[in-house]
Amino acid sequence: MLKVYLAGPEVFLPGGRELIDRKREALAEFGFAPTRRHADFMERDEKDPRAFGEEISRLNEELMDDADLCIANLTPFRGISADVGTVFELGYMIAQGKPAYGFTNDPRDYSVRATDYFGSATIESGRLVSPDGEMIEQHGMADNLMIDGGISHRGWSLQRAQTTPETMWTDLSAFRRVLTIARDQLHNREHHDDAQ
Amino acid sequence: MLKVYLAGPEVFLPGGRELIDRKREALAEFGFAPTRRHADFMERDEKDPRAFGEEISRLNEELMDDADLCIANLTPFRGISADVGTVFELGYMIAQGKPAYGFTNDPRDYSVRATDYFGSATIESGRLVSPDGEMIEQHGMADNLMIDGGISHRGWSLQRAQTTPETMWTDLSAFRRVLTIARDQLHNREHHDDAQ
Repeated sequence: MLKVYLAGPEVFLPGGRELIDRKREALAEFGFAPTRRHADFMERDEKDPRAFGEEISRLNEELMDDADLCIANLTPFRGISADVGTVFELGYMIAQGKPAYGFTNDPRDYSVRATDYFGSATIESGRLVSPDGEMIEQHGMADNLMIDGGISHRGWSLQRAQTTPETMWTDLSAFRRVLTIARDQLHNREHHDDAQ
Repeated sequence: MLKVYLAGPEVFLPGGRELIDRKREALAEFGFAPTRRHADFMERDEKDPRAFGEEISRLNEELMDDADLCIANLTPFRGISADVGTVFELGYMIAQGKPAYGFTNDPRDYSVRATDYFGSATIESGRLVSPDGEMIEQHGMADNLMIDGGISHRGWSLQRAQTTPETMWTDLSAFRRVLTIARDQLHNREHHDDAQ
């Protein structure tokens, strides 16, 4: 059974363990298995916070090395873009040649959120530009093009859902759509491989 | 000569090409070579912004595949964390087993910026917690532990500098400190390899 690394910032949220448990349970419905639990839930070492952080990093990397694919929760976190830890993991999995999917519970393009961040933006020579002269990516993508592009130019999928602030971290509709797509893409491939 | 992939959000800034040129020139001083120019500077295709974004992603990945190491500008960008495109690239390079260095022109810990973001934070059961009950990483690191940890548990380096808002994107002191460290770590290794 293919093993899924669930990347996402839920570890930082109140009730994070339950949020992650629901996603782990959904995997089984679609014929996937989760990795072992994220190292972030390890017993805290008070003595050396930095060494403890490095240990979590190392253990999460081991989980990724052991996984067959990843599904990244790319919902904007503490700002206008996805959680950077999650994005690091997405790049890490993609570089290993493993299937990588994403979902976000914010349906807007990055360019819309960035324009909100700056307060306004104008079109100059065909490019969207902030009042400070910064270029704002406008590719109809959910986030930075390395994220969306890295997923989509390989034929994987990034799904978006419209949610409310109250359901932004609990709504699993986009996550389940990703699971449906991943099942169709990867289980067929598995059977194909078996047949050879 | 070892080829360096320069990851960073300078492409989005006014005068981005000049900022990047200065960094490319500094590489030579330390005995490194730059990759070809980032795809972000390609002639814009107006017809299909999404396909154009995917093409940039693909070409930047090719530059990374061709590079021997990366140096990531992890200065907070449009928020409290590093640019997500840069962080994707850092994870991508690290997963390939290539040396990865970082620098940031914000000397503060992530926990300090996150506390500012939430307005306040309190210690509960030894953890730093936002008013909404979110956990704030407090490992004495510059950003998320996958970033800092991924670099430092491999023995590479993330350097910080104190700058002003005016010099945040032009100050190269931390970048040059990283180059000094990378030269010492990697050129010695090259000579060692040659001797075998």
